[in-house]
Amino acid sequence: MVKLVALYKQPEDKEKFDEHYFNVHVPITKKIPGLKKMKVTKFSTTPMGDVSEYYLMCEMYYEDYDAMKKGMRSEEGKASAKDLMSFAKDIVTLIIGEEKE
Amino acid sequence: MVKLVALYKQPEDKEKFDEHYFNVHVPITKKIPGLKKMKVTKFSTTPMGDVSEYYLMCEMYYEDYDAMKKGMRSEEGKASAKDLMSFAKDIVTLIIGEEKE
Repeated sequence: MVKLVALYKQPEDKEKFDEHYFNVHVPITKKIPGLKKMKVTKFSTTPMGDVSEYYLMCEMYYEDYDAMKKGMRSEEGKASAKDLMSFAKDIVTLIIGEEKE
Repeated sequence: MVKLVALYKQPEDKEKFDEHYFNVHVPITKKIPGLKKMKVTKFSTTPMGDVSEYYLMCEMYYEDYDAMKKGMRSEEGKASAKDLMSFAKDIVTLIIGEEKE
């Protein structure tokens, strides 16, 4: 399985971020065709207790690269990308990955 | 479940990194008591096709924060941390997280 990983840096306003992320962005994103599974991780601190650079991570699983590409190019995929840019343009990093073991 | 996430930036020598990572570091890390599951993701590119900042991610799952803390403080946990510092000190970021959905 391949996955699209979204890493979010610490937002300026966490409450506002969470509100939009969980109530708006997640439901929009879940509609993307071909999306098999979605896992959201909230980060706390580093093992040393320091504030981490990242606030949240979302892992979006697809059957293969083709399915991912199709999903991202679909209307629903474009709607999710557009929404993402509206609230997290400056703090989000997207990376495509494949689980090895 | 909580997880310790290790994000590795692009190594200077990918072949050397992989060699040590998969043949030495993973086996050492798998011995840590309390570790429930370990998932390694190899990153390819960003969705735009650019080289991503990160090369690899490892997610290490524990039952709860206490189990994670115990694991990290165990002899095996210390051995894994020591090995990590020997080959990836400058490129690794560690963050503690909890899966939300």
